[in-house]
Amino acid sequence: MRTDLYLVPNPVERKTLAGKSVVLIDVLRASTTICQALYAGARAVLPFEEPGEAAEMRAKIGPKESLLAGEREGIKIDNFDLGNSPREFTREAVAGKTILMTTSNGTRAYNKAKGSPLILTGALVNISKVAARIAREGIDVTIMCAGREGQFSIEDSICGGMLIDKLYTEHKLEMELNDAASLALLLYRSNKRALKETIAQGEHGRYLNRIGFGEDVAIAAEGDSIPVLPVLKESRIIIEEDS
Amino acid sequence: MRTDLYLVPNPVERKTLAGKSVVLIDVLRASTTICQALYAGARAVLPFEEPGEAAEMRAKIGPKESLLAGEREGIKIDNFDLGNSPREFTREAVAGKTILMTTSNGTRAYNKAKGSPLILTGALVNISKVAARIAREGIDVTIMCAGREGQFSIEDSICGGMLIDKLYTEHKLEMELNDAASLALLLYRSNKRALKETIAQGEHGRYLNRIGFGEDVAIAAEGDSIPVLPVLKESRIIIEEDS
Repeated sequence: MRTDLYLVPNPVERKTLAGKSVVLIDVLRASTTICQALYAGARAVLPFEEPGEAAEMRAKIGPKESLLAGEREGIKIDNFDLGNSPREFTREAVAGKTILMTTSNGTRAYNKAKGSPLILTGALVNISKVAARIAREGIDVTIMCAGREGQFSIEDSICGGMLIDKLYTEHKLEMELNDAASLALLLYRSNKRALKETIAQGEHGRYLNRIGFGEDVAIAAEGDSIPVLPVLKESRIIIEEDS
Repeated sequence: MRTDLYLVPNPVERKTLAGKSVVLIDVLRASTTICQALYAGARAVLPFEEPGEAAEMRAKIGPKESLLAGEREGIKIDNFDLGNSPREFTREAVAGKTILMTTSNGTRAYNKAKGSPLILTGALVNISKVAARIAREGIDVTIMCAGREGQFSIEDSICGGMLIDKLYTEHKLEMELNDAASLALLLYRSNKRALKETIAQGEHGRYLNRIGFGEDVAIAAEGDSIPVLPVLKESRIIIEEDS
């Protein structure tokens, strides 16, 4: 099976993803927060590229059923209900609600992946669930790292590398890797004894710490702490029924 | 001093490069071939984005003084004098000539860098020259990896990592690295005992081998084998006089 990883989302074309399982990774913080939202009982998360689109959808489905969530430069969008910190997505806040979400890097990739047979949200907090599902599907997989403003981001590639490591070591898959996938695997294996420190010391980790979200970085670096498997079905990210 | 590395060229904006030394790296093969062309006595190499621009310049400066060189998908462009294999750039072929060059990945970056105070062509074949010049300049440096068709390419990042390693170990510079620069350094240090094999086994190395240019991959992986320092001066890549 072929496993391709992309370090930054820009160059990936939709046709590259056709017929493949796709894993979208934005560890800091969209993927982590989507896992937390669904774990806390949100009905679904709908990803949007722009705040205006999310607000428009809210006008359609009604404010009682939904919450607007998202950030720009890490900060909650003005007039939105929630930002992008997993700590905001408590059961009290989100149970039964549909989350209309837009983030700088993470939610934009979902549009590109649409049409692929299996589209998963991957994070460190749900990494084993993702690996098991990819192995069960058994088709080629493309791992898309969200990065940060079009640039490489260490935590996303480490997460991608950890996923590949699990596919090898726990699921015994034989894979052909592209250069970036080999690199991500090396990056994970070189840092696995100090994952939290490496992520906290990365550019994005340091930035979030500076603006007061250091605790989110620690939460996002905790492996398998939020065991849910978010899948995209017809524009909605939900928990897969049999997962 | 700040050292930023970019794994793929697309996201780098011209303003990011202003006031910095810039190293443009396309190990397979533009950077290597530019080194070889100047080493073999070419007067200058002029980089162009498109074959038409190179041909237009040739009409201006005359066919006796110049040679058209370049490739698309690794193959010499139709009606061009030379492709992009360093083995074609012999003293007999290029001495005294101006090379008008266009390649898929490598030559496109020069336009973006224009205006920076020092713009160097970096390859494994001239890595120590580049490191020494960067250290002497002493200002922030941006290392731009050409990649391959907008994607990460292992040999360019290894070369960038080797450059950073030399700046640390031989020139004792204190540097602040971005995430991608740390990654490139890790990649180099993890592979330095098997550089040639790693590069030959990368996607681009395998591709060039398949289309008959395996020997070029071996030439490009030979550290410090072509000791020249190509610098961009007013749209012309030349050997720096005092280098």
